Amino acid sequence: MKGIQRFPKTLHLAILAGVLLAGTLGTALTAVAQDISDLQTPNGALVLKAQGSFFVGGETVSLTTTEVGGYGLFPGGDIAVNQMYVQYMIPQGNPNVVPVVMIHGGTLSGKSYETTPDGRMGWDEYFVRQGHAVYKPDQVSRARSGFNPAIYNDVRAGIVPPASQPIITRLSNQANWTLFRFGPTFGVPYPDEQFPVAAADKFAKQGIPVLNATLPDPNATAKALSALAIQLKGAVIMGHSESGLFPLQAALVNATGTKGLIDIEPGGCNATVFTNQQIATLATVPILVVFGDHLDNPNSFPIPGVTWATQFADCKAFIARVNAAHGNATMLYPPDLGIHGNSHMIMLDKNNLQIADLILKWIDDNVGSKKTAGK
Amino acid sequence: MKGIQRFPKTLHLAILAGVLLAGTLGTALTAVAQDISDLQTPNGALVLKAQGSFFVGGETVSLTTTEVGGYGLFPGGDIAVNQMYVQYMIPQGNPNVVPVVMIHGGTLSGKSYETTPDGRMGWDEYFVRQGHAVYKPDQVSRARSGFNPAIYNDVRAGIVPPASQPIITRLSNQANWTLFRFGPTFGVPYPDEQFPVAAADKFAKQGIPVLNATLPDPNATAKALSALAIQLKGAVIMGHSESGLFPLQAALVNATGTKGLIDIEPGGCNATVFTNQQIATLATVPILVVFGDHLDNPNSFPIPGVTWATQFADCKAFIARVNAAHGNATMLYPPDLGIHGNSHMIMLDKNNLQIADLILKWIDDNVGSKKTAGK
Repeated sequence: MKGIQRFPKTLHLAILAGVLLAGTLGTALTAVAQDISDLQTPNGALVLKAQGSFFVGGETVSLTTTEVGGYGLFPGGDIAVNQMYVQYMIPQGNPNVVPVVMIHGGTLSGKSYETTPDGRMGWDEYFVRQGHAVYKPDQVSRARSGFNPAIYNDVRAGIVPPASQPIITRLSNQANWTLFRFGPTFGVPYPDEQFPVAAADKFAKQGIPVLNATLPDPNATAKALSALAIQLKGAVIMGHSESGLFPLQAALVNATGTKGLIDIEPGGCNATVFTNQQIATLATVPILVVFGDHLDNPNSFPIPGVTWATQFADCKAFIARVNAAHGNATMLYPPDLGIHGNSHMIMLDKNNLQIADLILKWIDDNVGSKKTAGK
Repeated sequence: MKGIQRFPKTLHLAILAGVLLAGTLGTALTAVAQDISDLQTPNGALVLKAQGSFFVGGETVSLTTTEVGGYGLFPGGDIAVNQMYVQYMIPQGNPNVVPVVMIHGGTLSGKSYETTPDGRMGWDEYFVRQGHAVYKPDQVSRARSGFNPAIYNDVRAGIVPPASQPIITRLSNQANWTLFRFGPTFGVPYPDEQFPVAAADKFAKQGIPVLNATLPDPNATAKALSALAIQLKGAVIMGHSESGLFPLQAALVNATGTKGLIDIEPGGCNATVFTNQQIATLATVPILVVFGDHLDNPNSFPIPGVTWATQFADCKAFIARVNAAHGNATMLYPPDLGIHGNSHMIMLDKNNLQIADLILKWIDDNVGSKKTAGK
C-alpha cells in the first residue's frame, strides 16, 4: 500500500478505470487444476448460420531488426498494430435481431464471456441462443489482438532506458478477491456469494497481461468498437469493468452504429467529466448500467475514500444527467429486485443466466430489433 | 543478416524450430483494411452439440508488488502461469469420431485455424462439419493463455539488467513473404500461388508476439497437449510450423491419448536427433507430415545451406526411420498429386479445404474412430 501516496486520487482512478478494473483470481487454498471434466453439455443443439473471426482497424508500423526480436536472423520491417480481433457466432433465425458486441475487462480476454470457470454456459452462447448474433473482441494490445513489442526489445538492447518501458499488469489472486467482491477478505466468501468460488483457481487462469501502456492515447479499442458497430449496421455494445466506459466512448467517436450501450460494473461513469455536448450525444442512445451486490466493502478498492459504492453513486449521477438531457439511461441493480450476492464477474456468477435475462429484456424493451433500433 | 555469423547452425535451427517458424505477413503495397465485408456465410447451418473454452495445465507462482505491475496500488501475490487456453466445438452426431486438436505456429494464435484472411471457412469449422470435435488451443504464453510479466517489470524497476529480459518476437511482413513462400521475393507471388496474397495485409493482423523465451524448458505446451489428449480419451494432435514438432513431443511425454500425429510444415523433423527409444514410441502412433510447394527457394530461410527443401528431406528421413521401426508414417506432398502452389500457411490457402480432405482421409484410413483409434 506504500505506493498509494505517490499518486493523486484522480490518477488512481484513471489507472483503475483504464488499466486495472478487472483481473485474475484464485486461491492459494486450492491447487490449480485442469477443468475439462467440469464442462457441461447443453440440452439442445446450438444451430449457427455462421461463426468465425476477423479483425477491425489496425495500422502498419516499421520496426528495426532489433525491435522485431528476430534473434538477428530476420530483418526488421512492417508489422500490423492496433488491430482488434473479433470472434462471432450468428444464430439461424431472424437477421433483424440486434447484434451484441461483448468487450472484456482488464487483465482478461474475450474468454470472460465464454464457458464459466465451473463449466457452465457463458453469455456469448446464451445470447446467441436467444437470437442475437454475438461479436466478442479481444481488446487492442491484448490476447489474440497482438501488441507491439518494439520498446521491450529496445530496452533489452540498451537503446532506451529501462524506466521508459511500459508496465505490464497482472493482478494477484489476493488483490482480486476483495476487488471482485468474492468475499470480505481473501479466501472468505460472502454467505450469499454468487461467484463460483470453488472454481476460483480455474478463473485465475483467465489472467492476461495488460499492455495498454504500450498504446497511443486514446486507446484504439473504443474507435474499433465504433467502427465495428457501423460495419454491423447497428449493434449493442457491452463493456465490463476496465472496458465499462468503452461503449460510451465508442458512441462518442461515432454513434451511427451504437444502438444500445451496456456498462457492466465500470470503474465509474465520469458523471462530472463528460461535457454537456457529450451528454447530449449519449442521450441519443439507450444506456444500461449494471452493478452487483456487496458494493460497500471499504477494502475492495486500494484507494482511500473510494469503494464500489462511491463508483455506483457516480454512475447513478451519470444516469440522472443523461436523463435530464432527455436520454434513456437505466441502472440495473439486482438487489433492488431481491437478487443478492452478485460479484464483479457477474457474467460468470452462478445466476449468470438470470442476470442475462434481465439484460436481454432491457434490450428488447429499449433497443428492439435491428430495423427499429435507435428510434 | 549480420547476426547470422554469431550463432552456430544448430542454434539457428533450434531458434527457427522453437520460436520463429511461422509469422505475420502483409504487404506495404496495400493499406491495412477492415475485413468484416469479406466474411462468407456457409450454405448450411453449423449444428453443434456443445462449444466453449477451458484451460489445461498451469501452475501458481508468487510475484512481488513490482512484478505484478499494479502501479503500486495492488499488492503482489499469486498468479496462474503455464496454463493453455483451449476453445472447442463438438458437432451433433457420432461421439466416436476421433477429436482433432489444432495447435498453431510461431507468432500466431489459434486464429490461424479460423476464418481465412479473405473470409473463407477455416479448418476448425470444416473439420467439425466433417464430424470431428475440434479443440483449438493458444500455445502456453501466447494470446489468451497469458504469460508471466514478472521479469519485464523487474527490468523496468532496475532490479535485473536489461540484457536478462527475454526477447519478444514478431516477424515483419518482409521477412515472412519468402519464409512462408508467398512468392520468390517480397511483394511478388509465385504464378501458381495458393495463398490469397491479395489479403496479405489482413493476414498480417494475425501477428502475435512470441514470449516463449519467458517459459521454463521444456516448453509446457507439449505436456499440456499430451494431457489434453488423455482427457479427451484419444485425439489426433495437429501442429503447424513452430508447433510442428509438438505432436511428436506430446506423444513422447505420454502417448496414451495421442491416436494420430499430424505435422504441418514443421521446421524439421529431428530425424537424427530422436533416440531409438523415442522412435520406437513414435512408431506406435500413426504420423502424417504435410509440406506445400516451392520448397527450393534458396532465400526462404535466413540460414546459409538451409531451405525448406532441406527440412523436407529431414522429415522424409524421419519418416523412413519410423517406418523402419515398424511404424506408420506418411508424407503428404500435394505436388505428388498434381496439386501445386501451396504455401507454408496451407490451412489458409485458396485450396485449403482440398488439402483438408486429404488429411481427413488419412485420419479415416489410419486412425479411424475413437473406439478403434491407436490399434
